[in-house]
Amino acid sequence: MSVLVVGSVAYDGIETPMGKTDRIMGGSASYISITSSFFANPVRLVGTVGKDFDEKDLELFKFRNIDLEGFKIDQSGRTFFWKGRYHDDFNNRDTLDTQLNVFENFDPVIPDAYIGSRYVCLGNIDPKLQLKVLDQVSTPDLVICDTMNFWISGAKEDLLKTLKRVDVLIINDSEARELTNQVNLIRAAEDIRKMGPSILIIKKGEHGAQLFSDEGVFAAPAYPLSEIYDPTGAGDSFLGGFTGWLARTKDHSPENLRRAVIFGSVMASFCVEDFGPNNFKELSEYKIMDRYEEMLRMSHIPKVP
Amino acid sequence: MSVLVVGSVAYDGIETPMGKTDRIMGGSASYISITSSFFANPVRLVGTVGKDFDEKDLELFKFRNIDLEGFKIDQSGRTFFWKGRYHDDFNNRDTLDTQLNVFENFDPVIPDAYIGSRYVCLGNIDPKLQLKVLDQVSTPDLVICDTMNFWISGAKEDLLKTLKRVDVLIINDSEARELTNQVNLIRAAEDIRKMGPSILIIKKGEHGAQLFSDEGVFAAPAYPLSEIYDPTGAGDSFLGGFTGWLARTKDHSPENLRRAVIFGSVMASFCVEDFGPNNFKELSEYKIMDRYEEMLRMSHIPKVP
Repeated sequence: MSVLVVGSVAYDGIETPMGKTDRIMGGSASYISITSSFFANPVRLVGTVGKDFDEKDLELFKFRNIDLEGFKIDQSGRTFFWKGRYHDDFNNRDTLDTQLNVFENFDPVIPDAYIGSRYVCLGNIDPKLQLKVLDQVSTPDLVICDTMNFWISGAKEDLLKTLKRVDVLIINDSEARELTNQVNLIRAAEDIRKMGPSILIIKKGEHGAQLFSDEGVFAAPAYPLSEIYDPTGAGDSFLGGFTGWLARTKDHSPENLRRAVIFGSVMASFCVEDFGPNNFKELSEYKIMDRYEEMLRMSHIPKVP
Repeated sequence: MSVLVVGSVAYDGIETPMGKTDRIMGGSASYISITSSFFANPVRLVGTVGKDFDEKDLELFKFRNIDLEGFKIDQSGRTFFWKGRYHDDFNNRDTLDTQLNVFENFDPVIPDAYIGSRYVCLGNIDPKLQLKVLDQVSTPDLVICDTMNFWISGAKEDLLKTLKRVDVLIINDSEARELTNQVNLIRAAEDIRKMGPSILIIKKGEHGAQLFSDEGVFAAPAYPLSEIYDPTGAGDSFLGGFTGWLARTKDHSPENLRRAVIFGSVMASFCVEDFGPNNFKELSEYKIMDRYEEMLRMSHIPKVP
């Protein structure tokens, strides 16, 4: 089934304890579209970049068979640029530079051919723009949304309006706490599900993720990695794997939502094993399935005889 | 099978965001012996308290059928007292008062009847004393050990000597990092297993626990609780549940080690739902099994069809 992805496409300058890169493609829409393309077809990308956007990065999207009708190259300026440095524990980072460039005027226009998309992914952008996207599409099967502390503290009213129209919210634990003023995540989840999303996923980095739905709680581990190179894009890759699996199977049952969470974790684990989206260039379906099986084995709780 | 527990028996003054208690029984050996007694028999407690030790607390040990031949009431002083206040997130705490009292001269003497104990639990005490215990017992089936940052930074050489003779080490994530100077837990686990313990459990509080053994990694969630009253004793309760299950089943297979980890998590979850060991006073085997089943359900990853 069709997946529509709306969000940022950017260049990132990244420094982690494992190395450094001055300029590598990033942005929520890049990661979401690339990772969901391993499962679903067509994947449609709505985003804007500047005149400095590299041909090789465009080639990666094309290689992943991503529909670029809604992808605009704005010759009037440069691509959104972010520079950051991760701390030794990879959990915290300092932003060293942010240049919005052409992204400052990003106003998502959904091409006619995209309006009937069945799965709509709202990457982490201004909730006003997320709403604008929802106003343009017809009746999708599922709306999946990300956000961040910046919008929770700075645009809460708009965000609450967006959440009313969202089926799945995927955020991290600190965002869930900030959105609800609840320290306890179980209570935070209850409160968030009253805001609109019937399905909530709270990501906890190396500690895995929790899925909250009418079925109750599903606790998923993170895939254990002894080497992490770059956490950038892990959350977006999670969202892409999760959505891609659901779009491929068209099955929103509790069982299949669990599978989608695990595919999200698997795509996030591949993401952090190299800088930027590099690890997705040669990733195979076989490797994805293999890691799924490993997660199944490592989480298995035997019955009591 | 027989379980020998050596550690502290104390009174705690505890303040958490959910309430306050001026004086409630605590200490590693109390929690370990009480929780393991739900699974194993006999459970033997070696510890020392002062003349102020309450009859009702002695009654709790007796009610749990705990063998007290090695339990000494020292009339020369008072019981070890600790006072602390937990922060809003329950993950951090400030120590407000520590009075070692009779525990300062604790020198564990293992009664003859205890020497052949099959499962030996070394609660969090000076690693010198842990070694002394191991010198007194014959050849147990399994030695399970806890420690803390205080000993890792202050008595590392003694601790390393103890670890050489330990089968299972159960510590939390920050302790694993400090013991190895590794940020990454997978690498920390590899290093610790080279120090002696072939089985390592890293506890991560609300994020669950990881079991590292020759079989690989087992990732266990924490039981999700919307109300936490008092985290004191959670780690010791984990150790007690884990050991108790193994002692009951005499089965150290990879499958059964996983079950033991889940019983550890279950006992920790009961522990934090009330102050001190209060929740264990009326806990039933039925409730324990029920929570085990719930953990099994919430962690289940379905196969891909």
